[in-house]
Amino acid sequence: MEKFYQQFKLGVLGGGQLGRMLIQSAIDFNIDVHIIDPSPNAPCKNIATSFTVGDLQDFDAVYNFGKECDVITIEIEKVNTEALKKLRDEGVKVYPEPEAIEMIQDKRIQKTFYKENNIPTAPFVLVENKEEIHNHKDFLPAVNKLGKDGYDGRGVQVIRTKADIDKGFDKPGLLEQFVNFEKELAVIVAKNTKGEIKAFPPVELVFHPEANLVEYLFSPADISAEITNKANDLAIKVIEKINMTGILAIEMFLTKEGDVLVNEIAPRPHNSGHQTIEGNTVSQYEQHLRAILGMPLGNTDIRIPSAMVNLLGEEGHSGEVEIEGLDDALATDGVHFHLYGKKETTPFRKMGHISITDKSMENLKKKALKIKSTVKIISK
Amino acid sequence: MEKFYQQFKLGVLGGGQLGRMLIQSAIDFNIDVHIIDPSPNAPCKNIATSFTVGDLQDFDAVYNFGKECDVITIEIEKVNTEALKKLRDEGVKVYPEPEAIEMIQDKRIQKTFYKENNIPTAPFVLVENKEEIHNHKDFLPAVNKLGKDGYDGRGVQVIRTKADIDKGFDKPGLLEQFVNFEKELAVIVAKNTKGEIKAFPPVELVFHPEANLVEYLFSPADISAEITNKANDLAIKVIEKINMTGILAIEMFLTKEGDVLVNEIAPRPHNSGHQTIEGNTVSQYEQHLRAILGMPLGNTDIRIPSAMVNLLGEEGHSGEVEIEGLDDALATDGVHFHLYGKKETTPFRKMGHISITDKSMENLKKKALKIKSTVKIISK
Repeated sequence: MEKFYQQFKLGVLGGGQLGRMLIQSAIDFNIDVHIIDPSPNAPCKNIATSFTVGDLQDFDAVYNFGKECDVITIEIEKVNTEALKKLRDEGVKVYPEPEAIEMIQDKRIQKTFYKENNIPTAPFVLVENKEEIHNHKDFLPAVNKLGKDGYDGRGVQVIRTKADIDKGFDKPGLLEQFVNFEKELAVIVAKNTKGEIKAFPPVELVFHPEANLVEYLFSPADISAEITNKANDLAIKVIEKINMTGILAIEMFLTKEGDVLVNEIAPRPHNSGHQTIEGNTVSQYEQHLRAILGMPLGNTDIRIPSAMVNLLGEEGHSGEVEIEGLDDALATDGVHFHLYGKKETTPFRKMGHISITDKSMENLKKKALKIKSTVKIISK
Repeated sequence: MEKFYQQFKLGVLGGGQLGRMLIQSAIDFNIDVHIIDPSPNAPCKNIATSFTVGDLQDFDAVYNFGKECDVITIEIEKVNTEALKKLRDEGVKVYPEPEAIEMIQDKRIQKTFYKENNIPTAPFVLVENKEEIHNHKDFLPAVNKLGKDGYDGRGVQVIRTKADIDKGFDKPGLLEQFVNFEKELAVIVAKNTKGEIKAFPPVELVFHPEANLVEYLFSPADISAEITNKANDLAIKVIEKINMTGILAIEMFLTKEGDVLVNEIAPRPHNSGHQTIEGNTVSQYEQHLRAILGMPLGNTDIRIPSAMVNLLGEEGHSGEVEIEGLDDALATDGVHFHLYGKKETTPFRKMGHISITDKSMENLKKKALKIKSTVKIISK
């Protein structure tokens, strides 16, 4: 076991809300967390042990930050992996492994990896540019995804018919067959430095139709024990094949035929695991710390059913934040606010989330829908 | 509702573990927390928005710190209340109210208050010095308590027989009849700025025989519904009579006759409420923030049974911390570490606590006893 609770430096690339919640968990273990982020007002700024402003894709910035740390992890995938490899060569522990980050950074390599490892995923073809999409008209309706730099709903374009091809990306990407899914699920799975693996029970995601961001989710997902096992087994297979350390979030499609397909993955704490803070025995944040610091993994059981509603900036509002419906929400049993320390809102910006816990799934869903329709992040 | 989530300064007198856990909760509300503490290495140091070294009993230190804040609260009672009154006069909101702090600072005034307000408590007499204890031999066995400055087991002396009177304090205090109790209970109750009151379900305390510190506790207490109601009603009566804002922790004796008596109280987050973080819908820390910032109080229901084991420095160990039995504890389902950021241990120093959650009370108690006997805070 690492002497992590003393004179130990954990470095995190990225200082957004995921890093912020990771720090909240790290405080319980006396772990000093050092953050680097390009934004001088990133959500981690005021609670990190040290905060460095720097470009996460710049070799020198990442290398100079990392060489002072004992362990390095990430809260965003878009980082300079060459610097991470050099740091690892010099004895800094880097989790997840740089090769896993590189594979996930490029959706073309990622999808090819699934195919090679018999991991079920939607059928796809690689395309180099918009022109090539025309060669795959028989593949439509499909989703055109950018190979690199897609993030939070950006870099994804639905191509329903030939007429939509003009909306496609004129860059290397892929065309993925449109999955007419029954539900979207997500599983968070962890592997620690000793090879121990544990998956959280699947959650059910509901997406915002325009912003392509998770709008709310329920835990546990409303699926059979058979599908639950299938989803968890798939998650375990994916992390084993990637052979990475830390937590891996896997968004999945459940098809109308009962198949479970991998959709997107992220090698870090994820939006689809926020509710584990209140709902599960161990949170995704603590699980990530346990995994990368060589601790035994925590029990992932559901302590109480939970829901999570993202607080996105309202359309038409930019500027200093005001929260509409705050008092009514706070007066609702089992409502937990998590605000991300962002002083300015813009449309669809992730400003926070609300977790809701309730012993009854029915009440839980009612409350989530009510919160979703009454709490608004607006500007003054 | 306060615009607490923006440009808002909460000042806390005291930067120990209670302040630390209060900050962890405040992060979720975007509340900037400013701390003053006499120790330059206090547990809050690295996570507070600002950290001032200062004497909490010094008028100028408290006044100068407080005048920059919008709301002031405490995590320790031994503070300069004259400065707090002046701050309040100048428009700073001070919760709990300085008069409540003053009453609680002096156990002689506190006990007299119970008597005057028909709040059940152990019979007592005031004594000015050691000599006067001799006048009350018929009162023995009794507990001699210092009026002021008692803290964490200090300032309390059991006087079983005449021969023990020499161990008594030669300062103003009180002699309290020894209660041959069945159990010790604790209830945390909150009153917000709008007068709303909510109590947490009672917990059952087990004290360390030598250190006179809570060694472990269980939630919920193993008592009848009738006693539960009696304890909660008593807690509500106490906070109503004191008429204070914030949370109030009340340690109680349950006598063999089924009476519930007030023992000690503290107008702040308390050791007997740590397990609310994992076990209850709202934690004592969030409840305190809700109370003093004018938010609706949270639901206090038990989400899952929980236990709390204090991690005290082992006898015979002083210096840099090492934790014995850490890995086995972490591998136990439902174990949550809370380390307080203290680099040096001394005998009986509060170094952290462990919360345990389990759906079965029987398993919970087994785990607590095992953790208690296997996890040790030692020096290298």
